[in-house]
Amino acid sequence: MHSLHGNHLIAGEATHSGTTAFRAFNPATGTPLEPPFFEATVAEVHAALSKAQKAFRTFGQSGAEVRALLLEKIADEILALGEALLQRAHEETGLPLERLTGERGRSVGQIRQFAAVLREGSWCGACIDTALPERQPLPRPDLRRVLVPLGPVVVFGASNFPLAFSVAGGDTASALAAGCPVVVKGHPAHPGTCELVASAINKAISAAGLNAGIFSLVHGREAAVGLELVRHPAASAVGFTGSLQAGRALLDAAQQRSQPIPVFAEMSSVNPLVILPGALKERGAAIAEGLKNSVALGVGQFCTKPGLVFTTDTEGLGAFLSALNTGFGQVAPGTMLHAGIAAAYRTGVERLSTMTGVTKAGASAKAANLTLPQAEAAVFTVDTAGYRAHPSLQHELFGPQTLVVVAKDVAEILALCEDLEGQLTATVHATPHEEVDAHVEDLIAVLQRKAGRLVWNGFPTGVEVSPAMQHGGPYPASTDARYTSVGTASIQRWVRPVCYQNFPEDALPAALQNANPLGLMRLVNSEWTRAGI
Amino acid sequence: MHSLHGNHLIAGEATHSGTTAFRAFNPATGTPLEPPFFEATVAEVHAALSKAQKAFRTFGQSGAEVRALLLEKIADEILALGEALLQRAHEETGLPLERLTGERGRSVGQIRQFAAVLREGSWCGACIDTALPERQPLPRPDLRRVLVPLGPVVVFGASNFPLAFSVAGGDTASALAAGCPVVVKGHPAHPGTCELVASAINKAISAAGLNAGIFSLVHGREAAVGLELVRHPAASAVGFTGSLQAGRALLDAAQQRSQPIPVFAEMSSVNPLVILPGALKERGAAIAEGLKNSVALGVGQFCTKPGLVFTTDTEGLGAFLSALNTGFGQVAPGTMLHAGIAAAYRTGVERLSTMTGVTKAGASAKAANLTLPQAEAAVFTVDTAGYRAHPSLQHELFGPQTLVVVAKDVAEILALCEDLEGQLTATVHATPHEEVDAHVEDLIAVLQRKAGRLVWNGFPTGVEVSPAMQHGGPYPASTDARYTSVGTASIQRWVRPVCYQNFPEDALPAALQNANPLGLMRLVNSEWTRAGI
Repeated sequence: MHSLHGNHLIAGEATHSGTTAFRAFNPATGTPLEPPFFEATVAEVHAALSKAQKAFRTFGQSGAEVRALLLEKIADEILALGEALLQRAHEETGLPLERLTGERGRSVGQIRQFAAVLREGSWCGACIDTALPERQPLPRPDLRRVLVPLGPVVVFGASNFPLAFSVAGGDTASALAAGCPVVVKGHPAHPGTCELVASAINKAISAAGLNAGIFSLVHGREAAVGLELVRHPAASAVGFTGSLQAGRALLDAAQQRSQPIPVFAEMSSVNPLVILPGALKERGAAIAEGLKNSVALGVGQFCTKPGLVFTTDTEGLGAFLSALNTGFGQVAPGTMLHAGIAAAYRTGVERLSTMTGVTKAGASAKAANLTLPQAEAAVFTVDTAGYRAHPSLQHELFGPQTLVVVAKDVAEILALCEDLEGQLTATVHATPHEEVDAHVEDLIAVLQRKAGRLVWNGFPTGVEVSPAMQHGGPYPASTDARYTSVGTASIQRWVRPVCYQNFPEDALPAALQNANPLGLMRLVNSEWTRAGI
Repeated sequence: MHSLHGNHLIAGEATHSGTTAFRAFNPATGTPLEPPFFEATVAEVHAALSKAQKAFRTFGQSGAEVRALLLEKIADEILALGEALLQRAHEETGLPLERLTGERGRSVGQIRQFAAVLREGSWCGACIDTALPERQPLPRPDLRRVLVPLGPVVVFGASNFPLAFSVAGGDTASALAAGCPVVVKGHPAHPGTCELVASAINKAISAAGLNAGIFSLVHGREAAVGLELVRHPAASAVGFTGSLQAGRALLDAAQQRSQPIPVFAEMSSVNPLVILPGALKERGAAIAEGLKNSVALGVGQFCTKPGLVFTTDTEGLGAFLSALNTGFGQVAPGTMLHAGIAAAYRTGVERLSTMTGVTKAGASAKAANLTLPQAEAAVFTVDTAGYRAHPSLQHELFGPQTLVVVAKDVAEILALCEDLEGQLTATVHATPHEEVDAHVEDLIAVLQRKAGRLVWNGFPTGVEVSPAMQHGGPYPASTDARYTSVGTASIQRWVRPVCYQNFPEDALPAALQNANPLGLMRLVNSEWTRAGI
């Protein structure tokens, strides 16, 4: 059994000097959980980041195999925490043990994927233009480019994925894979889970014989700790998953530095879902069932929850709405992650219920226990004019709710999509006949300008961890749509290219040496090849 | 002969409604040049960007061949401007015709390189993970990712490259290649050159039968026009080459938008050059000659000018300094681009001359004509303590000047390098014996953390346009070190990934279709291949 100490873990050392304490709460019972945790002080933030900066000098130059072994060891140590980890996460988040077991699998799976990416190696983008000494009017020098790590990365986890998007989540795994030390600001809703996972990472670093400064965890419930981290001169980049408000505050702080740093924040999305007339007619009830499941999954606490549906007032609408009414009625009230989220959700649902033109079209039949952070599922409808009258209907409401906008026809949907904000995902439901419709081609073109991932005849929840995934879209979905926070390509957030001009062979990184000792796929004189030079 | 009209070119239309006029100046004679140009109004900025936004709907979906033909046509039309272009650029910048001829070659060469990149096609990063319907515990959907254009790009050219980094420079060429419409803010020091090149682009767009909105040129000497462009809701990204102050102002404006947009600004760098003791002893005089040539090239008006030299007080220092003294003495005063640059340069040189611990170690023997924007070359020396005492010695001084810091030993140089700001380039001069020295390995590691391009036994001026080039480094060298502004990889600044999930074959972009009709190199189920599926 692991007993929690409530300290920060700064370069492997359990310590705290602050006196402002906070505790986690069990949302299922409303009771506080021991032990207390403490707001990190300015000195503690400084210690974590300056140790990270020093550690970067060696870790940033370490070989791929060193980092691959570290990642695998981290995965092993997380699994070695066993039931204690799942139990604490369950207590702190109210998420079912089964879900947490699955999430743990996803977390260690993605950590191991990065180890595989490092071993294959081509992710580093090696590109070589050999010298052309005879070229006129001027010779071309020998130029060789490869990706190198940025430096210490500050990671902010999310409350809704206490394992996969937290201390050892995708941000930390991809940053360590890139060769960047990591300082995590623990999520105050699950600090004990954070401590357990951080201790596993520390064990792995120690077993690998690496500098302890490559990883630290500091706690904090106040915004000050996060801002202090982002403003510290040694911070080189920021990874964040959470609310628009918090993400924007970190972005602003990062940009106001004397030396601005990149921020990848995954924030806010309503994930529009378009149901075309053919699909509505052919399988409206089935889509309603899938939609309800997607909305209610995890008590609606997914960044990819479809919170906005566009369909037409055509054949099948009645059956679709009726199936939604039945489906949402059957959803049992669920325990949300914490009281703040539940309160915001209830306020949002109440506001919708009283909004002109917006109609409640279904809700959990069973009432929530209002003394606990429980949420009832709810579905609303509105027509185009009503939707247009309330721009706030485009804003994300975190929880098991969605809004169906009933348009006149597909042209009207197209116009609505044109005015959407940036999104993580956008979904189209169509029949094979509609697939080749010119209208639909236009619709896909519009949605492609708005979203990072387009889903066909499916639902956006469930974000695969794979090379082709894109999780990130135009603002406010994320702060930099050029990157993804899920999948192996997320490593690209923490690196930058360096070009070596006329370097002697033995002073070049292995990835750029003539013989191609790492066997990478490289772009050599504009040809893709694994051959040596 | 092309007569200039002084208008903006908004979606192909020559127009102006503003009344605040400015003229270019011939820096070689100090005389104003006709015609007058006008500050763009808010309405003109809006017209250019809203036309760009509309044009993006089709241009952003256009095929690679369409864009390749457009780029080639632009190159042809620029050449068709003939001597008139070179003559006007010469009058507006004082740059010699021979240099401008070379720069024109570089400009059309890079435009054509992007056409070739489009035709080959693999730059779009196609990545496919095919479905795994039997996978446990959950099936994997079919996921396919490709790069898509961001939207209208605002480009700010540089005064020092009126062709290669201006209206049809690398930023415009790469943005059009990516499928992004471009609105250029013409450089007020060479507005006539801007008008000529813009007219060539308009001709090419018209000949290609494309929407005229994909390109506009607006003029402006005041900061307001640039800020208006960056703040316009239709602007999706910004490319800039120029001063730190202006670049930072644009970055701040872009970040303060309700929807922040990426800014790639290439700004300020002193391009440190380290001469190790062995190289100093073996070929100090030859390095001095190369250094002088690199510093004086183009009257020192290159972003890669080596403005800071670190060497040791060891054998050969005297010969090196003596050769610098002789070399700089022989540099004739040169005409700078405009009076503002010349004034800033003179002030900077005067400040250096009176700074405690800083010694003038050589300068043009012939005096500059102070009634014109002429500059004398100058080299200064300082010891480590003197350098450390004046942090401003790390700041770029645009012009034919450099500063030699004489350190005690390599360890001291290493410490100085550790405290450098971000740089475009860093250079090492060493002997083959030194190449394998542990100190030198450390030095390369430090410089790699500071710069985007590392040069071995050479000089940083001369930036090759090729796939492996990296022109961009940690702040303040550029605002986003993850990208380059020179070379074919610069197209990556204007795109973002979109993932298609479970899309039917005929609704997928060609780059992602099973048969691989474009013959791209793709990452399919983690294997690099040109084969179809």
